Amino acid sequence: MENMGLQPLFNLDSFERKPLFTNGFYQKDIISVSQFSKNDLDYIFTRANEMLEMSQRWGTSDLLKGYTLACVFYEPSTRTSSSFIAAMERLGGKVIPITEGIQYSSVSKGESLIDSMITLEQYCDVIVLRHPEVGSSAAAAKYVKVPIINAGDGAGEHPTQALLDLFTIRRELGQIDGLRIGMVGDLRYGRTVHSLTKLLSLYDVSLRYVSPDTLRLPLDLMNYLIDMKMDVREFSKVEDVISNVDVLYVTRIQKERFVDLSQYEEVKDCFLISTELMEKAKEKMIVMHPLPRVGEIEYKVDKDPRAAYFRQVQNGLYIRMALLAAVLGRA
Amino acid sequence: MENMGLQPLFNLDSFERKPLFTNGFYQKDIISVSQFSKNDLDYIFTRANEMLEMSQRWGTSDLLKGYTLACVFYEPSTRTSSSFIAAMERLGGKVIPITEGIQYSSVSKGESLIDSMITLEQYCDVIVLRHPEVGSSAAAAKYVKVPIINAGDGAGEHPTQALLDLFTIRRELGQIDGLRIGMVGDLRYGRTVHSLTKLLSLYDVSLRYVSPDTLRLPLDLMNYLIDMKMDVREFSKVEDVISNVDVLYVTRIQKERFVDLSQYEEVKDCFLISTELMEKAKEKMIVMHPLPRVGEIEYKVDKDPRAAYFRQVQNGLYIRMALLAAVLGRA
Amino acid sequence: MENMGLQPLFNLDSFERKPLFTNGFYQKDIISVSQFSKNDLDYIFTRANEMLEMSQRWGTSDLLKGYTLACVFYEPSTRTSSSFIAAMERLGGKVIPITEGIQYSSVSKGESLIDSMITLEQYCDVIVLRHPEVGSSAAAAKYVKVPIINAGDGAGEHPTQALLDLFTIRRELGQIDGLRIGMVGDLRYGRTVHSLTKLLSLYDVSLRYVSPDTLRLPLDLMNYLIDMKMDVREFSKVEDVISNVDVLYVTRIQKERFVDLSQYEEVKDCFLISTELMEKAKEKMIVMHPLPRVGEIEYKVDKDPRAAYFRQVQNGLYIRMALLAAVLGRA
Repeated sequence: MENMGLQPLFNLDSFERKPLFTNGFYQKDIISVSQFSKNDLDYIFTRANEMLEMSQRWGTSDLLKGYTLACVFYEPSTRTSSSFIAAMERLGGKVIPITEGIQYSSVSKGESLIDSMITLEQYCDVIVLRHPEVGSSAAAAKYVKVPIINAGDGAGEHPTQALLDLFTIRRELGQIDGLRIGMVGDLRYGRTVHSLTKLLSLYDVSLRYVSPDTLRLPLDLMNYLIDMKMDVREFSKVEDVISNVDVLYVTRIQKERFVDLSQYEEVKDCFLISTELMEKAKEKMIVMHPLPRVGEIEYKVDKDPRAAYFRQVQNGLYIRMALLAAVLGRA
Repeated sequence: MENMGLQPLFNLDSFERKPLFTNGFYQKDIISVSQFSKNDLDYIFTRANEMLEMSQRWGTSDLLKGYTLACVFYEPSTRTSSSFIAAMERLGGKVIPITEGIQYSSVSKGESLIDSMITLEQYCDVIVLRHPEVGSSAAAAKYVKVPIINAGDGAGEHPTQALLDLFTIRRELGQIDGLRIGMVGDLRYGRTVHSLTKLLSLYDVSLRYVSPDTLRLPLDLMNYLIDMKMDVREFSKVEDVISNVDVLYVTRIQKERFVDLSQYEEVKDCFLISTELMEKAKEKMIVMHPLPRVGEIEYKVDKDPRAAYFRQVQNGLYIRMALLAAVLGRA
Repeated sequence: MENMGLQPLFNLDSFERKPLFTNGFYQKDIISVSQFSKNDLDYIFTRANEMLEMSQRWGTSDLLKGYTLACVFYEPSTRTSSSFIAAMERLGGKVIPITEGIQYSSVSKGESLIDSMITLEQYCDVIVLRHPEVGSSAAAAKYVKVPIINAGDGAGEHPTQALLDLFTIRRELGQIDGLRIGMVGDLRYGRTVHSLTKLLSLYDVSLRYVSPDTLRLPLDLMNYLIDMKMDVREFSKVEDVISNVDVLYVTRIQKERFVDLSQYEEVKDCFLISTELMEKAKEKMIVMHPLPRVGEIEYKVDKDPRAAYFRQVQNGLYIRMALLAAVLGRA
């Protein structure tokens, strides 16, 4: 096309946007925890640590200047979308937030998820996708050229949550091998428990599961742990594990899971984390929770330095900064 | 006002924000396709081309540093709002996205559109407005000092869509004059078809319209084309035009337009773009679609290099970057 | 944590983000108008003036580069949220806008406001909070370490509105002492009237209140003014004050406040600001309104240079820029 003798807007010779690192993460989709090796985890955790230091020192950086993220949430999740938006913005990247109205918009006109994703990739360099259907991110990744980061696909996966959980354990306790880790609550339906369990199975750890009878770890996951020869045991009261775990990972038990509400009332105190219970815990241990909580950890516990759940939230920011930079070839 | 002996925050002598170009677009509203001359189109397309090159090279620029866009959508349209947001952000401008809740907010308190717009212009340098009522952008432009860009006013206009459509034809096929252009689908109610038709009437092109009987081009538009002595013909099956068009512009046919659903079922296949149909098309031609599609183009066609509809989406980004920069005097 | 021999992403020695000013505002919450001394107001107004000059000259600045705002609205308020977003963006800060879906998200899962706020503070340096419950911002501020700016807590306070109102009076008329200020409309429930009244009680002004009988200033506020020995009088028609006020602060009267609609119809014209009424006003005076209006000021009045309500909106931007910078130690 002719330029009409116009003064050009840009001097395009001076600069070229390009990847600095074309390692294993460059242009890769982040779909499932099963895609990570121990080496991958070390890499991301090292980068996340750098993100932490940079954030505390500078607040923001220009590492992702020139890159745009489309942050697409088909179901609201303030915590996760805020975390990804903050992560991209702190690295100097641009964000197109698509968190509302999407169900009333293109989709309501009958557009397929794939078409919506291919459309959005025309505007951006990476897509974060939350969608209620299992497998949605994997399906989208097949058709879309830019990297897709799964931010939760229904009962499926939420890999960045599992990464931030593991990163928290490592940051708080220095290492992962050798730890005894208790998980409490709804172990049957709890997506975060399943994903973290899979990541932990890469390490030499002891696993202690505490749940109501009807909400025990699913058979296939338990059998997988047994096949992996993990040191694993199940309990029905958090009291039975509190004194010798290094990590207590607490999750919510939804009343709705119980056919009989009186059954729920009967057992719920067995999974409550109170200041009294914390007196029996080791001096150096941490309590984690994916949040939101609705009563399973007493507010008074927040002041205990072993309460790591809000620091865990912050680690999510650093993990997401590291992943965004890695898939864009800038970390 | 006295400065209380405080250390001043800014050294205001060092810099002044000012327009670089005060040509025909500077401070102008973009309301309707009828406002553009062929020269205007050349200008915008040249600038859009520069935006394309810059985006591919750098990703973002600082051309609109210091400028703020209020992106106001009274009805959701993820595609259009994302495109404008991405356009402004890629040029280093700031965006105030007002895409949700607006109907529950000021408006529900009874505030007039004009008051809302005058309020918002206090915060920004340019407004993009989507509103369901015909004429809303033109009405707002009368009262608001900053430029308003119409992003769709109901059954009225959506000028940036028509510009990106025309830009796509020119980018894909090198020129516009001399082309034979087919438009398929709901030609009666299709806003994009009407606007693109008006722009094409500035050029020496042949127009081929394909629609169900009840959804033919409106009388006034057809008469206008005849008065302009355009080479125009109408058809009832896409098969009749496929082998000799250079552009096939496909739009959706809504079932709801048919009183009798069986009538819809009868004719719908006459407007389906399939891989079989594409075998009869010229080797150098393009298929376009304003999207979203709901079945009128088979997914298998996407792999055909002549399928231009996703590149068309990307062109929207460059056209909007060019327009934003032009009305702000920076292109 | 070991760094795996990787090339580091950042050179952390080169820069450290730090406060420039650690005066009375640094790290403070902005909850209520009662927290401001006359000196505080002078300080903020001086800074707001600098923000105004900078905005008109440059548009944006890098004063808050490295800082992130979480802008959390539990009820929609386009005007206020846009203003805060624009304020932060114009100063080069990052914004995490949380204006939608929040009630369907964490909160619907039963999360407490406090937990949501502690979660968000992990991502940001300052929180702007709008929440329908009186006292919500004060409650959150007790638990959250980063500064909280109250953007409206139901029938409670909306301090930045009162500050921008007072700043407008000072900018428009040069000083505050010695003025006669009329307030018109719903003085009983009008949050803005109550807050502005409290701020004005710090100055030597005459106050004239005009309202329907059933919507007079609350007893406690009137008694407070009398105790402060303010020059205060009440009226039932705006006509009675128009000729000798320097400021006319108009607010909406909601029909719903009247048990008997005919009563509303009977009195409403006594509070209407028309061009005829304005003929009786002083030549140098201003009409203000917190907006949105729904008929209480005729549109024709907008052209009168004494109509200050849209300039008042713009002043809100500068006040919010000044406050954000001040609590972050950058002004």
